[in-house]
Amino acid sequence: MVETTETTMKLFYYPAACSLADHIALIEAGLAYTAVPINHEKKTADGRDFLSLNPKGYIPALELEDGSILTENPVILNYIAERAGKLLPQGLARWRVLEALAFMSSEIHSAYQPFFRNFPEVEKARAREKLTGNFAILSAQQADREFLVGDTFTIADCYLYWVLTVVPKTGVQLPDNLQASFDRLKTRPSVVRALAEEGL
Amino acid sequence: MVETTETTMKLFYYPAACSLADHIALIEAGLAYTAVPINHEKKTADGRDFLSLNPKGYIPALELEDGSILTENPVILNYIAERAGKLLPQGLARWRVLEALAFMSSEIHSAYQPFFRNFPEVEKARAREKLTGNFAILSAQQADREFLVGDTFTIADCYLYWVLTVVPKTGVQLPDNLQASFDRLKTRPSVVRALAEEGL
Ligand SMILES: N[C@@H](CCC(=O)N[C@@H](CS)C(=O)NCC(=O)O)C(=O)O
Ligand SMILES: N[C@@H](CCC(=O)N[C@@H](CS)C(=O)NCC(=O)O)C(=O)O
Repeated sequence: MVETTETTMKLFYYPAACSLADHIALIEAGLAYTAVPINHEKKTADGRDFLSLNPKGYIPALELEDGSILTENPVILNYIAERAGKLLPQGLARWRVLEALAFMSSEIHSAYQPFFRNFPEVEKARAREKLTGNFAILSAQQADREFLVGDTFTIADCYLYWVLTVVPKTGVQLPDNLQASFDRLKTRPSVVRALAEEGL
Repeated sequence: MVETTETTMKLFYYPAACSLADHIALIEAGLAYTAVPINHEKKTADGRDFLSLNPKGYIPALELEDGSILTENPVILNYIAERAGKLLPQGLARWRVLEALAFMSSEIHSAYQPFFRNFPEVEKARAREKLTGNFAILSAQQADREFLVGDTFTIADCYLYWVLTVVPKTGVQLPDNLQASFDRLKTRPSVVRALAEEGL
């Protein structure tokens, strides 16, 4: 936890889960936040019942200063970037960032389920095939640039970092440029700090 | 097809597929567009190879006037709404619309795969359980209001309409308020017109 005043935003998270993307984004954005872990009984570390805060039951969830709860990773990331006036370029590049977030969420994150929940091998094999195609798409988008979209670090890179942390669980071979991107992201101060704050 | 001039946006679609949401949104927005169907060999009705336009191979894809191609349903819908200055409220309601789109895309649309692609019954059963929970979330959000978010028709309703067209394929029982919403949406002029333009 970085701040403990009542008035900061609260990011509910499980360590190393996809909320890591938002945690990194909050640090990059320079916004005041409290990172609040949830335990396996769905109790938050500040003593509340997570399901009553977010009936979907999953993280990330961002509690705003007025008590509103925002969910869905691509939307929370977009919110953080707009609030900070950072991490999201203008013009067509903005749509490319939002597109990359939606793609990673609907096509890649969802294909991780068989590995997270240990579904039968036939489902894992199908997911591997899908993931291989999807990483080829991301790889072509990244090309030989440093970041996924344009010339600057964006919220798409925050989510990309988390997406890439899961790859070893899947047995899929990453294209070289995405592996290189992952290796660079690992050393980024915001990433190092988010991992430390999550006790990893 | 509504317009055939070179300078309109082009929406690539399969009849009755999730591109229907964008088709309805374009009509509601009052923007000039051409709806271009794709055949099973991934050729577009204007004679081009769809995979070279959109390597992801899926619809919806929106070709802008400058030739840029935008993909991912929640993002195309957001783009249409911003361009038109309609269908997306301000303030927190805007985030609620984007959140609903991301939820329907990442949690509901993705759970339709076992029915679209006739996966084994065990996967269909698991998807039905997930969908039942997800429709309960949407149902609570809709409550007894006419639209999914706030008091006006938004891009969330465009996508909701399509999401609800698929339910009979899944064998899931819809909550009453969502069924009522579907029945109302079916008679909306933009929906009637989009269906007619797709030959349905
Ligand atoms: N559609 C959601 C999915 C979030 C999600 O799947 N979160 C996972 C962690 S990566 C989770 O909380 N799983 C535990 C659970 O559902 O209980 C989003 O994009 O934010
Ligand atoms: N993540 C994409 C998924 C789009 C999608 O699944 N489209 C389906 C139709 S509903 C499709 O084109 N399937 C045919 C194919 O992949 O060849 C989005 O949200 O737009």
